[in-house]
Amino acid sequence: MPFSQILAALLALFFTLHVQAQENLPSGQRKEIISPEIHADNSVTFRLMAPNANQVSVTGDFLAQEEPAKMTNNAGGVWSYTTRPLPSELYTYAFNVDGLTVNDPNNVYYRRDVASVLNVLLVGGGQADLYKVNRVPHGTVAKRWYESPGNHMTRRITIYTPPGYEESNKSYPVLYLLHGMGGDEEAWMTLGRASQILDNLIAQNKAEPMIVLMPNGNVAQEAAPGESSLGFHKPQFQLPHTMDGKYEETFHEIIRFVESQYRTIPEKKGRAIAGLSMGGFHTLHISRYYPDTFDYIGLFSAAIMPDEKVQSKVYDRFDQTLAVQKENGFELYWIAIGKDDFLYQANADFRKKLDVMDFPYIYRESEGGHTWRNWRIYLSEFLPLLFK
Amino acid sequence: MPFSQILAALLALFFTLHVQAQENLPSGQRKEIISPEIHADNSVTFRLMAPNANQVSVTGDFLAQEEPAKMTNNAGGVWSYTTRPLPSELYTYAFNVDGLTVNDPNNVYYRRDVASVLNVLLVGGGQADLYKVNRVPHGTVAKRWYESPGNHMTRRITIYTPPGYEESNKSYPVLYLLHGMGGDEEAWMTLGRASQILDNLIAQNKAEPMIVLMPNGNVAQEAAPGESSLGFHKPQFQLPHTMDGKYEETFHEIIRFVESQYRTIPEKKGRAIAGLSMGGFHTLHISRYYPDTFDYIGLFSAAIMPDEKVQSKVYDRFDQTLAVQKENGFELYWIAIGKDDFLYQANADFRKKLDVMDFPYIYRESEGGHTWRNWRIYLSEFLPLLFK
Repeated sequence: MPFSQILAALLALFFTLHVQAQENLPSGQRKEIISPEIHADNSVTFRLMAPNANQVSVTGDFLAQEEPAKMTNNAGGVWSYTTRPLPSELYTYAFNVDGLTVNDPNNVYYRRDVASVLNVLLVGGGQADLYKVNRVPHGTVAKRWYESPGNHMTRRITIYTPPGYEESNKSYPVLYLLHGMGGDEEAWMTLGRASQILDNLIAQNKAEPMIVLMPNGNVAQEAAPGESSLGFHKPQFQLPHTMDGKYEETFHEIIRFVESQYRTIPEKKGRAIAGLSMGGFHTLHISRYYPDTFDYIGLFSAAIMPDEKVQSKVYDRFDQTLAVQKENGFELYWIAIGKDDFLYQANADFRKKLDVMDFPYIYRESEGGHTWRNWRIYLSEFLPLLFK
Repeated sequence: MPFSQILAALLALFFTLHVQAQENLPSGQRKEIISPEIHADNSVTFRLMAPNANQVSVTGDFLAQEEPAKMTNNAGGVWSYTTRPLPSELYTYAFNVDGLTVNDPNNVYYRRDVASVLNVLLVGGGQADLYKVNRVPHGTVAKRWYESPGNHMTRRITIYTPPGYEESNKSYPVLYLLHGMGGDEEAWMTLGRASQILDNLIAQNKAEPMIVLMPNGNVAQEAAPGESSLGFHKPQFQLPHTMDGKYEETFHEIIRFVESQYRTIPEKKGRAIAGLSMGGFHTLHISRYYPDTFDYIGLFSAAIMPDEKVQSKVYDRFDQTLAVQKENGFELYWIAIGKDDFLYQANADFRKKLDVMDFPYIYRESEGGHTWRNWRIYLSEFLPLLFK
């Protein structure tokens, strides 16, 4: 008997006693459960062992309808539900057992979105193949801290450097990629699959190798929840000073940081900026605060509110600075939104404003609403347009 | 009304409809629950809203006993349990509702250990203050991929570079820090709090600034579960070729990688190696496979089995190579184990073998067993001994 088998047996015994004792189920039964199971036709079976439950359902963005899908109680206390064949996508889901929302104990993959933790599931064979870790060259993903004197703190940032960066002497263009409200410097990596999309599009020669900065857009935060000196606190949706111009005012610190620390192309043609929702708002305003800095600008479901009733310093000289930005010129101003997004009308109004000014932009209207599904699609469409 | 408040309200509405609908509870009720709540005396209250449950308990390594602690059904369907004042530690826990193990929906912090996902909780005021993100200079943590021709794949690795690395021209010593069976290149970061321990000990001048490599010790794996081309597969405890000498044989690839890519001190005095359980086995054998390479060697609850019955190539010329290692000399050979560890006797036998050879080592015997609690303590004790 090889030693590794002996150790595995001893460790399994140890973990059974200490960690899994609470299952109150024969461990043999528990281990047989596969959930989720993705079938050859891309239908998916979810399973949950819950012998004492009266009603079990599954909910998630794979469902066509809003209501949770009722699961069936099979032999041995295993509840199950099989979907129709699903389009290729990264889905999130949760179970509900007699009114209690629970995660899938047979799936260790999950994502935090603000204060919710949901299991994830990837159905391949289409768009979501871009979200997979494939056998292609991989970039490096680093978590670093930079000085932000304007916010009186050291702040955490995520940095993707493309495959080959460390071995070459080349300089690379930079995309600044911004998250939405409730997000942080982790969001584009965990929910947006940014590094996988980049690795795959670069390997397919569809995107230029580039550095991607994913800063934290909440100026009151040092870092993502759990990664700062606040400890394991409950994540909040809304934080102070997220949309009052403070981020725009201090954004030059982030540009200076990357351009002093990495081999970049420190010119307009080597800079792109894009963001989702609140990050789209930030992108809009940062690009006019620094009106000769970015050649590529992407607004994904942007939280635009050109309503005169909203009072914020960030809107000062809105039209004049947009006019300056237009005058200075840029390669691409890309506006994307879903037909069902609650910000659809606000984006339509903003486009009208741009039309009146003769401000050039590309408009991409998609199905769906204010979802990570759309933001991953927008990123995968936006990247190939950059640095050409 | 500032725009950020309007957007937060709209987003909250959106998320309530799409994500939290499955709660089947008035959202006001749900939001009031705080769990876990750490009191001033370091007692902790766990709470769970489960109005339809018959029996709810909480289990975790904070309990003195093996049995889960029964929770009490209070008004409004909220179950609760309050602990005694707890020693400072990073704890894991889970709830059990009528036989079903569930995570705490009010705590977004959790850790995967092999195929189990448990919530975490940090009680400060002692040892666990080293595991906090404090307001001290922070190192950079990068996930990179290196070429492993010996294993015919590109493999993922975690690298900690100390605060100031990027701004200095200094060369730094390197600690190779190895995980146990069922672990991977994530384990020392997520369960071991390695970057927090390093940041804090370096800030306190108790540890030298150093580079820490956290490789994946399962030679059959490209990367941690979910981070490789295998996709979101079920993690396995035991993988092929973990303890048969293959890792030891190809370890020079990892040394070459870091020494060619980072400013290191590429000498024995600039190299340390340590690991837990299977990683302790790897440390023992790597340090004798490369017997003039490491000045600092740490075996944490090492999976040692000097039993003649075990057949493995890794044991070839065991005594002779240990003798060579002793002859070549080193600064520190540190063996740590808990009194209740199932590997206690194997470590005692190994120490007898070393005593017979007059092989110098330092022995540290702790309370407890084969736990991350001990491995974090061992790391925090081992680091100050390095590179003096």
